[in-house]
Amino acid sequence: MYQARLTQLGILLPPAPKPIASYVPAVAAGSLLYVSGQLPLREGKLLHTGKVPDQVSIEAGQEAARQCVLNALAIAKDHLTTLDRVKQIVRLSGYVASSPEFHQQPLIINGASELLEAIFGAAGKHSRIAVGVISLPLNAPVELDLILQFTD
Amino acid sequence: MYQARLTQLGILLPPAPKPIASYVPAVAAGSLLYVSGQLPLREGKLLHTGKVPDQVSIEAGQEAARQCVLNALAIAKDHLTTLDRVKQIVRLSGYVASSPEFHQQPLIINGASELLEAIFGAAGKHSRIAVGVISLPLNAPVELDLILQFTD
Amino acid sequence: MYQARLTQLGILLPPAPKPIASYVPAVAAGSLLYVSGQLPLREGKLLHTGKVPDQVSIEAGQEAARQCVLNALAIAKDHLTTLDRVKQIVRLSGYVASSPEFHQQPLIINGASELLEAIFGAAGKHSRIAVGVISLPLNAPVELDLILQFTD
Repeated sequence: MYQARLTQLGILLPPAPKPIASYVPAVAAGSLLYVSGQLPLREGKLLHTGKVPDQVSIEAGQEAARQCVLNALAIAKDHLTTLDRVKQIVRLSGYVASSPEFHQQPLIINGASELLEAIFGAAGKHSRIAVGVISLPLNAPVELDLILQFTD
Repeated sequence: MYQARLTQLGILLPPAPKPIASYVPAVAAGSLLYVSGQLPLREGKLLHTGKVPDQVSIEAGQEAARQCVLNALAIAKDHLTTLDRVKQIVRLSGYVASSPEFHQQPLIINGASELLEAIFGAAGKHSRIAVGVISLPLNAPVELDLILQFTD
Repeated sequence: MYQARLTQLGILLPPAPKPIASYVPAVAAGSLLYVSGQLPLREGKLLHTGKVPDQVSIEAGQEAARQCVLNALAIAKDHLTTLDRVKQIVRLSGYVASSPEFHQQPLIINGASELLEAIFGAAGKHSRIAVGVISLPLNAPVELDLILQFTD
């Protein structure tokens, strides 16, 4: 179902990234999976660094947000064996490293939201927060985390 | 019960605001409702814009926080049909667009917390975080989100 | 079990701190306990104030993160009677008051994460977010909140 959809969309999930510090990639509690905050790492390197929009363009920020989602889904797949067990994406929290007068965080995080809906359809329609922050780990432009509901 | 209390307090909930981007206003998982981050929009316009306290006073920030709660409750009512199904306000997360040396975020978010307690009494006593952020969507001074527990 | 481990580690939990505003220290929903955002208060005073690393060193920031965890656990113990009812630390959210070019938030929050693992072992392995923020309540260098799963 969702695994097939990934293939249709031509999306190859990356290997699940390892945490960059003392915690684990995801923890399940009941039927909720809490995925740790993800950075736009691809093959161990950040796609972009710096703040939006001064050092990272809107388009690059959206690309970074998509990469964060791919990393989060790779972790979820690792944990659940298959993404077909995803019942609902419940909450996406998006943090955008922002210049002081940048106010289009939703536009950046849409890169993540639209990908979730493309993959999961109705099950991908999530609640969300999007805020601007002064700085992020490794000088990433975006960090995001997911809470998702899964079936047995 | 809570609907009647709203009337007693002279509070008329606004229409549930539409998301300003690619997500949904709220998602239920089990008995928890996750309401998306709310801005102090009233009739489609922000009550105040800018950072606290340089462009937005403490009092205006508190008013903005209250408006965020009204919007969140309007969404919750839309989802649950009636606020009388609210069992407990579980978590309020408050983000205040802050000047670098502003440290009274709790005072701002109290505008939201006190309104929740006025409406819901014991069921309105919530856990909370309050942090200062560099910028928020649309140049809003406050964003907040709620997690609440509901009954069938 | 975990209570004994605290003693082994020579850790004496502080009295549970009172909220500094209009909310409660923790709220349970189902088997999850949501602990409110904690500051590095010890005996009513902040261990350190200011931003990392300009006014607060990495080491001092880590010490602050540990104190936040102790306060969160004191609240959890108050709520659950004993920490032996902790089943899993589910989510740690860490906010570091950061200079604009500071990107080692994970290093700071490791102070909290490592303490949780030292106390709870496998049950202390949590999911996590770590972000940099422009300012925190009372000029604290760190704020963190916990969601934990507990047994009856």
